[in-house]
Amino acid sequence: MSDPKVNELMEKVVSLCKRRGFIFPSSEIYGGINGFWDYGPLGAELKRNVKELWWHSMTRHREDVVGLEATIIMHPQIWRASGHVDTFSDPMSDCLLTRKRFRSDQIEPQSGTAYHYTGAQDAVSGKCVDEPYAVLLPAGKPPESARKIANQFYQARGLGQVELQGERAEKVENSQRFNPDNGSLLTEPRPFNLMFKTYVGPVPDEDNVAYLRPETAQAIFVQFKNVLDSSRQKMPFGIAQIGKAFRNEVTPRNFTFRSREFEQMELEFFIKPDEVVEALCGTVAKPAGPGHPGEPRPDWGWQLWHQYWVEERIRFYGEIGLPRESLEEYWQKPEELAHYARATVDLLFKFPFGTQELEGIAARSDFDLSQHERFSGKSQAVFDEELRTAWAKLAEERRQALWQRYHDARHQYLTKAGVPAQQAEQDAREDADGLARGQYIPHVIEPSAGVDRLILGLLTHAYGEVTTTDAKGKTATEVVLRFHPKVAPIKVGVFPLLKNKPELVAKAREVFGLLRSEMAVFYDEAGSIGRRYARQDEAGTPFCVTIDFDTLGETPELKDTVTIRYRDDGRQERLPIAGLKAHLLPLVR
Amino acid sequence: MSDPKVNELMEKVVSLCKRRGFIFPSSEIYGGINGFWDYGPLGAELKRNVKELWWHSMTRHREDVVGLEATIIMHPQIWRASGHVDTFSDPMSDCLLTRKRFRSDQIEPQSGTAYHYTGAQDAVSGKCVDEPYAVLLPAGKPPESARKIANQFYQARGLGQVELQGERAEKVENSQRFNPDNGSLLTEPRPFNLMFKTYVGPVPDEDNVAYLRPETAQAIFVQFKNVLDSSRQKMPFGIAQIGKAFRNEVTPRNFTFRSREFEQMELEFFIKPDEVVEALCGTVAKPAGPGHPGEPRPDWGWQLWHQYWVEERIRFYGEIGLPRESLEEYWQKPEELAHYARATVDLLFKFPFGTQELEGIAARSDFDLSQHERFSGKSQAVFDEELRTAWAKLAEERRQALWQRYHDARHQYLTKAGVPAQQAEQDAREDADGLARGQYIPHVIEPSAGVDRLILGLLTHAYGEVTTTDAKGKTATEVVLRFHPKVAPIKVGVFPLLKNKPELVAKAREVFGLLRSEMAVFYDEAGSIGRRYARQDEAGTPFCVTIDFDTLGETPELKDTVTIRYRDDGRQERLPIAGLKAHLLPLVR
Repeated sequence: MSDPKVNELMEKVVSLCKRRGFIFPSSEIYGGINGFWDYGPLGAELKRNVKELWWHSMTRHREDVVGLEATIIMHPQIWRASGHVDTFSDPMSDCLLTRKRFRSDQIEPQSGTAYHYTGAQDAVSGKCVDEPYAVLLPAGKPPESARKIANQFYQARGLGQVELQGERAEKVENSQRFNPDNGSLLTEPRPFNLMFKTYVGPVPDEDNVAYLRPETAQAIFVQFKNVLDSSRQKMPFGIAQIGKAFRNEVTPRNFTFRSREFEQMELEFFIKPDEVVEALCGTVAKPAGPGHPGEPRPDWGWQLWHQYWVEERIRFYGEIGLPRESLEEYWQKPEELAHYARATVDLLFKFPFGTQELEGIAARSDFDLSQHERFSGKSQAVFDEELRTAWAKLAEERRQALWQRYHDARHQYLTKAGVPAQQAEQDAREDADGLARGQYIPHVIEPSAGVDRLILGLLTHAYGEVTTTDAKGKTATEVVLRFHPKVAPIKVGVFPLLKNKPELVAKAREVFGLLRSEMAVFYDEAGSIGRRYARQDEAGTPFCVTIDFDTLGETPELKDTVTIRYRDDGRQERLPIAGLKAHLLPLVR
Repeated sequence: MSDPKVNELMEKVVSLCKRRGFIFPSSEIYGGINGFWDYGPLGAELKRNVKELWWHSMTRHREDVVGLEATIIMHPQIWRASGHVDTFSDPMSDCLLTRKRFRSDQIEPQSGTAYHYTGAQDAVSGKCVDEPYAVLLPAGKPPESARKIANQFYQARGLGQVELQGERAEKVENSQRFNPDNGSLLTEPRPFNLMFKTYVGPVPDEDNVAYLRPETAQAIFVQFKNVLDSSRQKMPFGIAQIGKAFRNEVTPRNFTFRSREFEQMELEFFIKPDEVVEALCGTVAKPAGPGHPGEPRPDWGWQLWHQYWVEERIRFYGEIGLPRESLEEYWQKPEELAHYARATVDLLFKFPFGTQELEGIAARSDFDLSQHERFSGKSQAVFDEELRTAWAKLAEERRQALWQRYHDARHQYLTKAGVPAQQAEQDAREDADGLARGQYIPHVIEPSAGVDRLILGLLTHAYGEVTTTDAKGKTATEVVLRFHPKVAPIKVGVFPLLKNKPELVAKAREVFGLLRSEMAVFYDEAGSIGRRYARQDEAGTPFCVTIDFDTLGETPELKDTVTIRYRDDGRQERLPIAGLKAHLLPLVR
């Protein structure tokens, strides 16, 4: 955030968003609420388009994915199973003087001299406070400043006339243990859970605690069996969901990039474990190299499915206007992976404030369903008749090898989950024995995207400025949002050349009516055509159509034609009204 | 809910919803969470279709409404301005013995004899508890039962061997003051706020309280000025929003009808006050009679706008499959209206459990914007150049009359809002003086619909059973969901006659591919055609297309034609594949 150019671009985008109704601060007339943003008329349409495209690419255009729309508040036990209750937290420290709270790992490191005290005594009453305390001063500042602050600290603990005890000075380098504002010692870092908490039902006690979901994924896992039983899907298949999620971020930042209320588009694609694939197909196909592996095949294991989804997601971004070159693929290193993850690829985008994650595509093994099986006591295994048949036909040696590999993976999971050794061994054996009956717990590939950061990516990627010089040498700079037509909130601007010629207006309204049954169209008759182009450029509208006197037949061969102007290159062409819809539809869908 | 037939239909619908993946209990593998429901694959599509149709009918197909997508968590002050913090509550009473909480006004009335006690004393220690208590017994039960319960009550307050004091028996009729389970006295009813509460930021104190919105409407009001400033809309115009809302209902009930997390589709349509309309047009048009008043005109006041929106909403329901006859229009009586409302119409639907509200269309005066103006200190007035000009030209008498009416309405609002008399008078005068400068606070018409109850209405309205008797005299009952094609989750089922004929399958896949770029299509090759029809009937699919040997050219004149079967009347017709899309598109959109 230190590059002024960067701040300048972000400032321009934020200001454009407000001015044109893409994004407003939430509750702005009340001074706003930190970490919450509203989408205005253009923003709401942009966001709807993106979600609609994701949803259709995931569900309607595939036969192996179905949708789900679950609640934000779910049974709290879900967040124990997922690990969020125990580990979804940031370290926090409080100032011992002012109680101000800091995110411990984001405190600007301080250097200087720390003055430590073992306690203090009241010079009048003799009362003692044993609590140790310390104040950090920048190099060169006299110890008196530290003593003054320490006095305040002990006064707050009931002493009147403070006599500090056991003063000791110490050189400190890059410490995050002191309040950068006043030098006061902070409390030890404590975990602060990022889930918003509330109570469901009339009694606000511990039995009724509930959380606002911090991700949409868990709803998919807990409804996996219901969806499987009701949708006639067979393994492998996926469940897609779009919805709000909430994280009580300590420091929301970078406009909508890290906010407290946001929206996710998540797919959980359930696959057969490699041992099952091998039992069925005799082998598990290996990736042939980088790039898209093509149409899914039955002999794909988790690696190919993972590669497939990485490439599918990159293709999706390309289709909505973020080409492969604008993205970075980051393969997490083994030491960065969550313990249950086999591989995770982050798709990064170069935001003005840094290259940051748009989406993560994780191969999460059978961790999630296994956790919910353990915590709910409900089997999450699927039954696969083909596996049962294939298993019976396997050569004994192969069967044993697959049994062992499946057993070992289950054993590893159970052990890491803290199941006692004997129980883990027994459960792992039972799980592996299930293969012979055609039973297994599916693995999962999870492409998980953030809607709001994608919208922000689209906005910053689309943002451009065009400087023009008029005949008098006067220059003007205008903003152009070069949205892909598929995501653009308005697809077409329709203008009569002049607003005071009823025939032009009538014809323009006719064209407007013709198009708007199929796409979002904006009718504008105010100001010069150039001004109207500029307004639409700023809204990201890819096409403008002008109805002029030639449309009305002034030049007979041009009767019932209009001028279409293309936003990105300013090109204009003449098209018959009759062919307009057919010309535009494939461009905007 | 006492009619067994009613329960039977609801049970059938609930069971179908689970079986076919329309609606599942949230968190079911964890035993569920009361008042929360998830939409499965078919339900999610049904709901998306309904929301999409509402959104398009409100925004794309109108030039005078724009969209908004605001956050669920907003500044808490908003809920003070709206009145929700103070008055959005149910009365609750706790059992003095078990602490169980009841909604006071929903307790089943009890009759019998109440045994009152003034207090009790410990026979051993002599300790006294002065707290009065009472127990209600049904007629004929001996007082000993009451004494036993009273003993428990005083024991819980620290007495060992209880000696009850001042027993007094009293006949009681239809009282809601006692726990129906054990007869124990309840606490006095206390208001229980229905908003879910949480804390935003790292410190969970009163400064950081926030609420999950109990309605989407307020977000529209607080962003009114931002939308007006950024969207190039002029009065009158509307802002539409779809989104989740939350109410901590004490007794969620009737499946998804009254749940704790639900979705709303709300429009706030901002209009000029009647005084402004009259200043501009010389008169305010009066409703000519019942029915749709036609295209909006500049001389419409709130009455015609209200009537217009009632009729528009009824039209909408008709278009998605709930005809006018299935709805009831309920005009709230003057004594039922909220104090700020000028008129409210509830659109009711005959659910199996009773005739209940689907949507309310309220004329809310300028109450909402006025409240936010007072609470935020930010002017919510609009400026209207035409009004300024017109006002200057008004005859003095007319001007005075309009000034007075506007003044009186503002004065009435301010007084009801609790503004002290002198201040109210001064503010009302200033507001009325604003008219001359072209300034006023808009009034609003609010059509507010619940998505989930509409989905439930569509499901119960569509539900039907067809009993067929086969050649052997065996009868079978099958479910048909007669959804309007526009809302149906799947529009077309595509079947090859036989799955083991590659040419049939290839052709069917071709037809499937042709249609699915434009609509939701389901390909099915399993089982007899009759079975496949039945499966689609149950999912509410309006059309099924079968590819047979004639399609392949067995009967040359039928080559490349298919059989289309209509769900509702079982009619079948032969159509060329080339014309299929064009035939279906207007039916499903």
